[in-house]
Amino acid sequence: MSEKLIGACIFGQSGGPTAVINASAYGVIRAALDAEEITAVYGAAHGIQGVLNDQLYVMDEEDPQELAYLLHTPSSELGSCRYKMKDPEVDDTDYKRILEIFKKYNVRYFFYNGGNDSMDTCNKISRYMESVGYACHVMGVPKTIDNDLFGTDHCPGFASAAKYIATSCMEISKDACVYDTPMVVVVEIMGRHAGWLAASAALATEYGSGPDLVYLPECDFDMDRFLADVDSVLEKKGIVFVAVSEGIHYADGSFVSEAKTSATDGFGHAQLGGLASMLAEIVKNHTGIKVRGIELSLLQRCGAHLASATDVVEACNAGKVAVQEAVNGKTGFMVAFKREEKDGKYHCVYELLPLSAVANYEKKVPVEWINAEQNGLTHEFIDYVLPLVQGEVEVPKVDSLPRYAKLKKVLAQ
Amino acid sequence: MSEKLIGACIFGQSGGPTAVINASAYGVIRAALDAEEITAVYGAAHGIQGVLNDQLYVMDEEDPQELAYLLHTPSSELGSCRYKMKDPEVDDTDYKRILEIFKKYNVRYFFYNGGNDSMDTCNKISRYMESVGYACHVMGVPKTIDNDLFGTDHCPGFASAAKYIATSCMEISKDACVYDTPMVVVVEIMGRHAGWLAASAALATEYGSGPDLVYLPECDFDMDRFLADVDSVLEKKGIVFVAVSEGIHYADGSFVSEAKTSATDGFGHAQLGGLASMLAEIVKNHTGIKVRGIELSLLQRCGAHLASATDVVEACNAGKVAVQEAVNGKTGFMVAFKREEKDGKYHCVYELLPLSAVANYEKKVPVEWINAEQNGLTHEFIDYVLPLVQGEVEVPKVDSLPRYAKLKKVLAQ
Repeated sequence: MSEKLIGACIFGQSGGPTAVINASAYGVIRAALDAEEITAVYGAAHGIQGVLNDQLYVMDEEDPQELAYLLHTPSSELGSCRYKMKDPEVDDTDYKRILEIFKKYNVRYFFYNGGNDSMDTCNKISRYMESVGYACHVMGVPKTIDNDLFGTDHCPGFASAAKYIATSCMEISKDACVYDTPMVVVVEIMGRHAGWLAASAALATEYGSGPDLVYLPECDFDMDRFLADVDSVLEKKGIVFVAVSEGIHYADGSFVSEAKTSATDGFGHAQLGGLASMLAEIVKNHTGIKVRGIELSLLQRCGAHLASATDVVEACNAGKVAVQEAVNGKTGFMVAFKREEKDGKYHCVYELLPLSAVANYEKKVPVEWINAEQNGLTHEFIDYVLPLVQGEVEVPKVDSLPRYAKLKKVLAQ
Repeated sequence: MSEKLIGACIFGQSGGPTAVINASAYGVIRAALDAEEITAVYGAAHGIQGVLNDQLYVMDEEDPQELAYLLHTPSSELGSCRYKMKDPEVDDTDYKRILEIFKKYNVRYFFYNGGNDSMDTCNKISRYMESVGYACHVMGVPKTIDNDLFGTDHCPGFASAAKYIATSCMEISKDACVYDTPMVVVVEIMGRHAGWLAASAALATEYGSGPDLVYLPECDFDMDRFLADVDSVLEKKGIVFVAVSEGIHYADGSFVSEAKTSATDGFGHAQLGGLASMLAEIVKNHTGIKVRGIELSLLQRCGAHLASATDVVEACNAGKVAVQEAVNGKTGFMVAFKREEKDGKYHCVYELLPLSAVANYEKKVPVEWINAEQNGLTHEFIDYVLPLVQGEVEVPKVDSLPRYAKLKKVLAQ
């Protein structure tokens, strides 16, 4: 065995919140507090920005019970950021600053919890520390409701969002069919480039009460074909339930929602929204019947009360595994999930993927899981997603309302 | 004791769906099936329309277990309608038809489950049957997420919607504060004339994570004062969370959302919507910062997975009490809830109110429960709503997704 690396650790959260990113936080923080090799545990305020600004919370000061509440507290409790690091070869200002902070607190372990862009950040920091000969073990902990991280069967956060979407679609479907008058409901679901979340609405249909038509960004959207699809279902059923990814686009690549695009986020992604209302309006003009556009909005990514227990456990374990592997000498990896069968049942195995292999690739819904009409999913998708949404969480409550973690957030001096 | 009235019963659902209207359906149907005096139990397809069209489902044909699933099945399983009956003095065509159907099936009990308009329908039918000397006991079972029925402490459906709104607002609040950049979130909540639902968002704030500002239709809305309120919170906190009723209006009575009004429903109510985006856009133009408008839409009224157990039990009991009282000779009443204390705890007592006293009055949030600034609630409102949202439901599930009632819906010949 090689000599153990002794020092402090920093944990940071980045990108959009999820229902279980704090479960990963708990996994990392709990395992780090318990690890002999780790001398202090710092939580970065707003991800890498907290490192750059020397705003680190001392996790050792937190009440263990409050930390445990993180398992069911949605969103990023330490704060998140959307800060894109330059390539160190182009501009190493940020990296020098990070090194300075690492040296100040003797940080030898860095855990970063996020999606594609965060794995890129993580990878750059890992390479930089190696290039300057500063011993530091860097590990990525995956997180994204979008489920688009390369090399892992699925991502923490996706399953809880999928369960929220499926359950909500079942409820919306029940609600939409109460009157005996024709109606079209369009539900807009998150997902810029990958349609995993909108696809999950198909679970609702599988269980008896869900969308008739599902459109993903994996296929080119055609407005005429869409209206023909709606007409066809309308004729058969009288009520049409449509689920669409926010990122559906025409064959030329332009977003269907583009007319409403008004701003971009820090990574240059277009800010989408208003698609449901827009499509509903187009259907109304086309058919003349009653329509309703519904955007699941933030609710779908922060619905901790409806999280998948499988997701919570896996998210927490991803954090723990990151710490264990880092302490055992690994660096430059992201924890990934591999799907196996055990006694005929779904079983998740944790493995490590080189950050360089993960960063900046996007995993999309396989085209063979999309039906020939490109307006629905095949049963292979259902088989994929169903095991992930299993299990109910017991959210701690006070007076029947959620009880979230209340951290002291003592700043390191 | 007077002689018992022997005959069939019809049960109908009307108005907008709720998370627990089917719990009331179960209460009525189960009690009616069990009542010796009731010879057959019919469920009207789409409320009073089903009576007029002779579309009645034979509830005696249903599997008792499937009926029990109604307790946790959202929306109106028998179908609803928004059919406004004319006054029998003006035009008695519909009433003659109803009488014809009642005679055809020897209907001696009529239970109607709905809100203000449905109690009006119920009242008119009751008066008509009396005027023509047809013995029929007519009872109203209350239902409305809007909580605006006169004479009852609260209405079935309200508490579950309130719990959904409070929990969702807690989650949205957590989600909205992750970045260290200023932001304003506007959440639009149902409620045309009464602000009970938007007020319930204050529960989220009471439990540590909710809106900073709440605007109800009980007060005149002033755009300049609203923007000043937002500025003030923005300065203090950096992030502003606003909850608004869809029905907020200016001093002249015009809806703030009016510019977007495009249609009316069957009762002449304006169809509202798009208010959240509109206010968010106004705030964006005013402050220049990031905004997000969220409409809770149908989700808030059909969120059976997050129903209040108190609400489910009371909704079911309201149905049972209606049957018991009708069988015992009562007619022309609505079941109402009276709040009492028992061993220092909230306790619900069921009583009867004359339909004529209920119909067409709207109960609003008392002005003394709204703060002086007219942008929040006092603790009296919290004390009112808190007992109603208590208790978790155990929704039957298959593969971790809801299992709803599957009725055969055999049509009566």
